[in-house]
Amino acid sequence: MTTLGDNVYAVILAGGSGTRFWPKSRQLSPKQLCAIGNAKETMLETTLKRLDGFIAPDRRLIVTHEQQIESTKQIAGAACPHYLAEPDARNTANALALAALDIETRHQGADTPIMISLHADHVIENVDAFKQSVRNAIDSAKEGYLCLLGIVPDKPETGYGYIERGASLSETAFKVSSFREKPELELAKSYLESGNFLWNAGIFVWSIPTIIAELDHAIPTAMNALRGLKPEAGVGFRSCPSESLRSVYQGLPKISIDHAVLEVSKKVSVVDADIGWQDIGSWDALAKTFPTDQQNNISFGNTMLIDCEGVTADSDGDLVACLGLKDIVVVKAKGAVLVCPADKAQDVKKIVEALKADQNESYL
Amino acid sequence: MTTLGDNVYAVILAGGSGTRFWPKSRQLSPKQLCAIGNAKETMLETTLKRLDGFIAPDRRLIVTHEQQIESTKQIAGAACPHYLAEPDARNTANALALAALDIETRHQGADTPIMISLHADHVIENVDAFKQSVRNAIDSAKEGYLCLLGIVPDKPETGYGYIERGASLSETAFKVSSFREKPELELAKSYLESGNFLWNAGIFVWSIPTIIAELDHAIPTAMNALRGLKPEAGVGFRSCPSESLRSVYQGLPKISIDHAVLEVSKKVSVVDADIGWQDIGSWDALAKTFPTDQQNNISFGNTMLIDCEGVTADSDGDLVACLGLKDIVVVKAKGAVLVCPADKAQDVKKIVEALKADQNESYL
Repeated sequence: MTTLGDNVYAVILAGGSGTRFWPKSRQLSPKQLCAIGNAKETMLETTLKRLDGFIAPDRRLIVTHEQQIESTKQIAGAACPHYLAEPDARNTANALALAALDIETRHQGADTPIMISLHADHVIENVDAFKQSVRNAIDSAKEGYLCLLGIVPDKPETGYGYIERGASLSETAFKVSSFREKPELELAKSYLESGNFLWNAGIFVWSIPTIIAELDHAIPTAMNALRGLKPEAGVGFRSCPSESLRSVYQGLPKISIDHAVLEVSKKVSVVDADIGWQDIGSWDALAKTFPTDQQNNISFGNTMLIDCEGVTADSDGDLVACLGLKDIVVVKAKGAVLVCPADKAQDVKKIVEALKADQNESYL
Repeated sequence: MTTLGDNVYAVILAGGSGTRFWPKSRQLSPKQLCAIGNAKETMLETTLKRLDGFIAPDRRLIVTHEQQIESTKQIAGAACPHYLAEPDARNTANALALAALDIETRHQGADTPIMISLHADHVIENVDAFKQSVRNAIDSAKEGYLCLLGIVPDKPETGYGYIERGASLSETAFKVSSFREKPELELAKSYLESGNFLWNAGIFVWSIPTIIAELDHAIPTAMNALRGLKPEAGVGFRSCPSESLRSVYQGLPKISIDHAVLEVSKKVSVVDADIGWQDIGSWDALAKTFPTDQQNNISFGNTMLIDCEGVTADSDGDLVACLGLKDIVVVKAKGAVLVCPADKAQDVKKIVEALKADQNESYL
């Protein structure tokens, strides 16, 4: 695969409050700054390496919370020299608007700039297929479409949103006919059987003029406020004093790019992406993502499992010894231990909330 | 309560392999060298303090494994200057024989020496009642009986052996009519209702001549071998080279004082002991011993319980956060974490055995 043209930019959304993978993920080191499962590197590193030979470091941009900027820089290093630090998490429409305006002011070539919006905490097993899907999406974006990567489903997953394919636009792109919320199991099965539904991974490709026009239409007040910060050509929003950004951000309504733009625009397309994609949303998802033993256990680090079934165990040091457990998650990380049933792993934020209520900062 | 006469000696059995309360208890620091539950001091310290003003430190003797002698000395300090270090755990008949011979050679007064045999890891809540029971038992011992403290039961416990009261011997002592193994629940209920059964706590009082005569009769070969070590009067067996003791011990059959002597002797008595006694045998027993919250949870140290029921949680440092658990034991101690269902807490030795098989010494 050859490198993409120098008009193509990758925007990596690397936010997150660090609750879903507590105690490994924390406020200052959310999931993308952790190595999950048996990974040797953080998810952010993997995300950046995936772009090597595809998009040069100088055209990569990480958007993250200002609290996480230092730890993010430390991990990304030379693999991504550009950052936008949000003073507050105000959902994806604002983050992507800021990124689009940043690229608009920095871009110097003659070709229309194209932006690929990625997440720093996704698993993508098939990198070549990913790159091909992105190329297909770029072709669609050049024709003025907001193009989504639609993940080809391999099971009736109830945890993801779905994209319905509409009319064919080209050899690889289709119009999006509808977006569907996370379905019940029976509905998910019918989606899978129909062959016409794809998972929405939140991976978007569009040209900068297209997305800016859409955002100007969808959130004009926010766009005007952001432009009022007067980003410098060639430097972009990194030159804005953080206090100005803070005062603008405080006034922005929290809205996702899906609600603000994608669900209302007439120019939304999708390309198939059979790329081994996973969004590991909680501890119990590890057993669905990585190979388990015959008793459906999965363990990483210094662990010992005796007479266990369906156990997820992870330790960053101390020995975690599990005896006679069924469907339990046990994680030792960063001076704390989490123990919960696998089907309660989604509720781990309750612990984080209790720690906040106790002002127990050392574990947040 | 006044101090007992200077012919009364306390022998404190402080053995144990450190498996039942793993990871807090270890080979070199078994249960009696740990603070269990919300205790501020180790069980051995509590055991020794209980004797203050009752039996002077100079007439206390700890019998322990030679591996544990240094850690035991460190904890006991001046509260017990006398030790016998067993090269190998060969059950209570041999340990108490060694202790009896030691006291026989060291005792210098005119009065017949009396020995009280205690365990270093028992909970005794009512110390005054304990002392009164011991006095009653001494009276019986002076009449040539091997006298047991019979714990007055307050529930149909199936985990302890029972003593059946026989004919009255004095105002406080009865002949033992029979020993009963750990009963099934229905039988235990009938024992409780009858009012004639007491728990066998393994707390014995006897005169040195009586127990030595019984042991000479019961285990003559072992007694001859131990006497062959030639303990010095006034110094006792502490002067024996450990290598001699080791070679003698290797030849001794493993047998308990119950089987060797108490179950066969005709001169066994019992006194009531309503002393708030507990033998905490495993992690799940803490919830039966200490006060729990309304959801039957019990927790010590740096722990957080959310939506839990019947959980036992203990931490010596790191935060242990339990979410949505039912009847689970979670213990963080000394660089290891144990997680198991409460009804599997008795099987924690499986972990210790697996660690031994792996030669994972750092957690043993």
